[in-house]
Amino acid sequence: MGDVQYHDYLQLDKILDAQDPESAKQNISAHDEMLFIIIHQAYELWFKQLHHEADSILEIMRKPSLNDNSPELQTVVHRQNRMAVILRVLIHQIDILETMTPMDFLDFRDMLRPASGFQSWQFKMLEAKLGLRFEYRHGKEYYTAQLKHEHVELIKKAETDNSFLQLVNDWLERMPFFDDIVLWKDFSATDKDVHPFWTEYKKCYSNSLAEAEKNNLDIIDEVLFHHKETHYTLSAKANRAALFIMLYRGYPLLQLPFQLLNNLLEIDEQLSSWRHRHMNMVHRMIGTRIGTGGSSGKDYLKSAADKHYIYKEIAQLTSFLIERRKLPVLPKEVERKLGFTTSG
Amino acid sequence: MGDVQYHDYLQLDKILDAQDPESAKQNISAHDEMLFIIIHQAYELWFKQLHHEADSILEIMRKPSLNDNSPELQTVVHRQNRMAVILRVLIHQIDILETMTPMDFLDFRDMLRPASGFQSWQFKMLEAKLGLRFEYRHGKEYYTAQLKHEHVELIKKAETDNSFLQLVNDWLERMPFFDDIVLWKDFSATDKDVHPFWTEYKKCYSNSLAEAEKNNLDIIDEVLFHHKETHYTLSAKANRAALFIMLYRGYPLLQLPFQLLNNLLEIDEQLSSWRHRHMNMVHRMIGTRIGTGGSSGKDYLKSAADKHYIYKEIAQLTSFLIERRKLPVLPKEVERKLGFTTSG
Amino acid sequence: MGDVQYHDYLQLDKILDAQDPESAKQNISAHDEMLFIIIHQAYELWFKQLHHEADSILEIMRKPSLNDNSPELQTVVHRQNRMAVILRVLIHQIDILETMTPMDFLDFRDMLRPASGFQSWQFKMLEAKLGLRFEYRHGKEYYTAQLKHEHVELIKKAETDNSFLQLVNDWLERMPFFDDIVLWKDFSATDKDVHPFWTEYKKCYSNSLAEAEKNNLDIIDEVLFHHKETHYTLSAKANRAALFIMLYRGYPLLQLPFQLLNNLLEIDEQLSSWRHRHMNMVHRMIGTRIGTGGSSGKDYLKSAADKHYIYKEIAQLTSFLIERRKLPVLPKEVERKLGFTTSG
Amino acid sequence: MGDVQYHDYLQLDKILDAQDPESAKQNISAHDEMLFIIIHQAYELWFKQLHHEADSILEIMRKPSLNDNSPELQTVVHRQNRMAVILRVLIHQIDILETMTPMDFLDFRDMLRPASGFQSWQFKMLEAKLGLRFEYRHGKEYYTAQLKHEHVELIKKAETDNSFLQLVNDWLERMPFFDDIVLWKDFSATDKDVHPFWTEYKKCYSNSLAEAEKNNLDIIDEVLFHHKETHYTLSAKANRAALFIMLYRGYPLLQLPFQLLNNLLEIDEQLSSWRHRHMNMVHRMIGTRIGTGGSSGKDYLKSAADKHYIYKEIAQLTSFLIERRKLPVLPKEVERKLGFTTSG
Repeated sequence: MGDVQYHDYLQLDKILDAQDPESAKQNISAHDEMLFIIIHQAYELWFKQLHHEADSILEIMRKPSLNDNSPELQTVVHRQNRMAVILRVLIHQIDILETMTPMDFLDFRDMLRPASGFQSWQFKMLEAKLGLRFEYRHGKEYYTAQLKHEHVELIKKAETDNSFLQLVNDWLERMPFFDDIVLWKDFSATDKDVHPFWTEYKKCYSNSLAEAEKNNLDIIDEVLFHHKETHYTLSAKANRAALFIMLYRGYPLLQLPFQLLNNLLEIDEQLSSWRHRHMNMVHRMIGTRIGTGGSSGKDYLKSAADKHYIYKEIAQLTSFLIERRKLPVLPKEVERKLGFTTSG
Repeated sequence: MGDVQYHDYLQLDKILDAQDPESAKQNISAHDEMLFIIIHQAYELWFKQLHHEADSILEIMRKPSLNDNSPELQTVVHRQNRMAVILRVLIHQIDILETMTPMDFLDFRDMLRPASGFQSWQFKMLEAKLGLRFEYRHGKEYYTAQLKHEHVELIKKAETDNSFLQLVNDWLERMPFFDDIVLWKDFSATDKDVHPFWTEYKKCYSNSLAEAEKNNLDIIDEVLFHHKETHYTLSAKANRAALFIMLYRGYPLLQLPFQLLNNLLEIDEQLSSWRHRHMNMVHRMIGTRIGTGGSSGKDYLKSAADKHYIYKEIAQLTSFLIERRKLPVLPKEVERKLGFTTSG
Repeated sequence: MGDVQYHDYLQLDKILDAQDPESAKQNISAHDEMLFIIIHQAYELWFKQLHHEADSILEIMRKPSLNDNSPELQTVVHRQNRMAVILRVLIHQIDILETMTPMDFLDFRDMLRPASGFQSWQFKMLEAKLGLRFEYRHGKEYYTAQLKHEHVELIKKAETDNSFLQLVNDWLERMPFFDDIVLWKDFSATDKDVHPFWTEYKKCYSNSLAEAEKNNLDIIDEVLFHHKETHYTLSAKANRAALFIMLYRGYPLLQLPFQLLNNLLEIDEQLSSWRHRHMNMVHRMIGTRIGTGGSSGKDYLKSAADKHYIYKEIAQLTSFLIERRKLPVLPKEVERKLGFTTSG
Repeated sequence: MGDVQYHDYLQLDKILDAQDPESAKQNISAHDEMLFIIIHQAYELWFKQLHHEADSILEIMRKPSLNDNSPELQTVVHRQNRMAVILRVLIHQIDILETMTPMDFLDFRDMLRPASGFQSWQFKMLEAKLGLRFEYRHGKEYYTAQLKHEHVELIKKAETDNSFLQLVNDWLERMPFFDDIVLWKDFSATDKDVHPFWTEYKKCYSNSLAEAEKNNLDIIDEVLFHHKETHYTLSAKANRAALFIMLYRGYPLLQLPFQLLNNLLEIDEQLSSWRHRHMNMVHRMIGTRIGTGGSSGKDYLKSAADKHYIYKEIAQLTSFLIERRKLPVLPKEVERKLGFTTSG
């Protein structure tokens, strides 16, 4: 191993020599084109890092079973956290682009057609990995129309591979809490299709509803028991496990799973904020004119922002929580399985 | 003058003794209710500060004419900046509330009915002062349904008084750039209703449009010349002045006016981000259940967020800019009036 | 229980009527005094919230033993996280105060003497609760010189009560990992005073040091084994437990303890950033003049900022880590005690 | 002109293929090395952008005289603002690196020697351009010890060229406010070396000082009149102009100059925050061990952070302000020269 030098290690010759403004080629003065290039390159660098984290998470989640005594789940949670921190910086970064006024953008805007800001295959592929399905995309065809063939392939592949959302579903389905009905003998089963815990839970939930909310009872039935698989990614079984985790997150075995679920919502919210800020920024920049990529600009971005909540099925479960002090008390046997044996 | 002591000066006895959780009254443990109270109080303190700034700005703008040689316009711009900085912190502050999990909120949520988070008359009144008109409000009646009578009166009054948007309109209309047609003799008038500068400008703009954007020509006509007063707050005359400022912001006399207009968009964007983050936060907190105030929760907030862009008419003008290097050159006489006489 | 109304629930009559500018009393125009009052009130509200969180954490940590199967430790970690999020907003909030220019501050500055910005007993008491000891304070007497007697008493009491740092020490000392020497039979003891694990560890650590770092060997001896109790708050025994947690954080039983320790450093860093930003802000505001409280302004703040790292003993342990792949492998028996029995 | 494609335009093949972890070469697993590489590359991209802005500012300021009727000064102020916004994001970006724990860093840390994080020639050169002089650097030789010869040359050149601070000095010295003593006839000169305005001003300032501040009178004499050129970059004449701008910033001709001076302090403060956060981050990461570059880690960074205030001479002027209502009133003739002739 030879000496490692900062400049070479970071390959700065390549990085710092990759800005080639169109305006310069045309001998037109457009000071802000450099900013436009560099901010997009910075975004793409961070997108690569997000993929690096997402890939490592997917690799762990793809294992047939996670070892609760290994740091695997902790690693997933830690890297989700990092993804959320990165997304926060990416949102903040929009502040920089907003120092470019519409007139400054006009100096070079026409030279870029049909390139389109944020026409990023890395970003779309990231959405796919996290679980955004093609059929839920706004402007289905548009979103790949201007990408290179090889990049479209990459995105398609990410869509058919197991996404993070699907792997979370499988992981939730594997949760063993309800396997052994003997443990639950404190609960009396009244419905043969429904585990006795949930019969009890539904009763508690029903009592907690205001009159105007009573239709939530139908929804909870659908979500937790008779889920139509066609519309949703999460199965009824997975939803029950997720809800159980939210309700009893205090037990040691459920603490990391709770953090994992909560981080999904955090990532979704950051992505949502990103799309929203991006939309507003584009609106300030080009008004009602069409984007350089030929899109209707703000309208397209707005529809995408409204629609692309990847983990909305998890978010929806919040509607079915009840107050902690009214929760069914778990049988001692179940409690034991959710905790440490040797605590002091 | 006696000695001023920190604790008394800030009236901390009052401030720090104004938290009285409902859960404590009912002897129920709900640790996070204190956070819920304090964050709303912090919001209301900052809303008061935003009113303090807005009021001072309105007072200046209400003068029949601003003295360009006084610091008046500079003061307006400076205080707009401060409002934007405050709004950024208010958005950031949502992070704190998001450390409250849905289960933690449920511990005390039912005790608050029908109080509703952010059912703030100060906020609604601020929107009114800035220029949000009643007829553009989402859920017109709902928005005051649960306020005290005296607070509804305050909001109504703010709506009928001249809002910042209306005062900006008047200020723009007073701009003297086009009063003296003699100055503009380099431009030949072809349309008796339109100042010769704009005839020239429309030609340039038309040339800059892509085929798919040609319908913008109709819109620019409507916005700059035949504005129907009913739908808009800004008159055609005001729009022309605003566009002129954006185009020629480099001249000394237009620098502060440009900052003022730009700050309107900045404030609107911060308000938009605030509503969006708030909506997402509520969604994470209560899912599809109705809010404590009886609203449909997320849906109400989403519609309000989509609709309540106060300065969208200013933002729209961006669509009518042309490239700096294609701008009509101003006559020397006009240039002279826009600059300093004694510069070195 | 009657209806709860937003305005009354938040006691807004009190909160919004607690601003009484000195300049108004003297009929002098000083627009920014309102900002000065409100930002300090907002700080004090958040300080109260920080105390609310700190008190609840202290209450948990004061228990003779924590039940690892209860949510106690999770609650501590969660509320530490919240404290860090609040501190981030408090730092951001300085941006608002920096919109006040020095000239704007001068408009009312002299009226405030001897009140001093941030002469906050709540903040000093918070430092004391977290573990800042009187003997480490910069300007020992000065820091209480201008407080009311009852507030000085409160701070003194917080200093003599067990601080969070002291409770962390006791909790670390109680960690049972090394109690049963039989579990560690894979390690051979060569030093009767030192557990065989640490003999092995010191060997590994020694090998990892560069030549210029060899003096770290003396320091690790002092820190982990022969700690002079006078200079430090953490005992050698507690330091060993903390280091063990950092090294083996992947085991389930150590995950929350690791987060707890890491959050101490996070909180310390946020406090440090706060003091640093505050110092710079004061410097911009008053230059080299003395503060309204009579302090030497920036110099005092700088010395305090440099000195007041509450958890520096924990931070120091980072120096004694070794690479994960060179860590001593734990005996199976110990591994078993650090994990779940029933994982799938 | 052919079509411009996003991926090619941004040269993403180069950018996204410039990460080559040492750990991978050695077949050692170190997930976080990718983060380490990418964050430094992102920093370097932004440093390039900061140079792009700084260069354009320097080019404008190097002109023998600025035309107040051109957008030149506005451009300088606008790009300073952008630099401050970028610096804020760079500070925020440290949050991402802090998601790397010390143990994760150890996985690859030894492979990087002697490369050192932030051993960035671009950053040092930026400091030089902004005005940090070699003789004020902490660890004079050390700071270039590990750079390539060509990069040291670049930094040295930036130090000998006129820095922004020196150009600001020259620009301030050229300010014509005091050239024509006739304009100031309302002020009676009592000291032949001092313009009558300053005789008056010193009297006012003296009256404003508290007893403990009286030594400031000597300092103001030194700073405004008898400046020893050896220790300072700003001449007495430049200091007087800067102070005048701060005092009378409300006049149109002084508004942009005031923003320019204020932005210097803003940039200095952001740089200071960056160094401080960086120092704390390194401390958390490596404790008291030496950095990969052989530095004493935290201590070096701390000394640099304390010393490297580039614009401290401007900041110091704050000490010499007096209350607005006690300011000498300017003669009509001077007022006229500071304003617009044609305002309505």
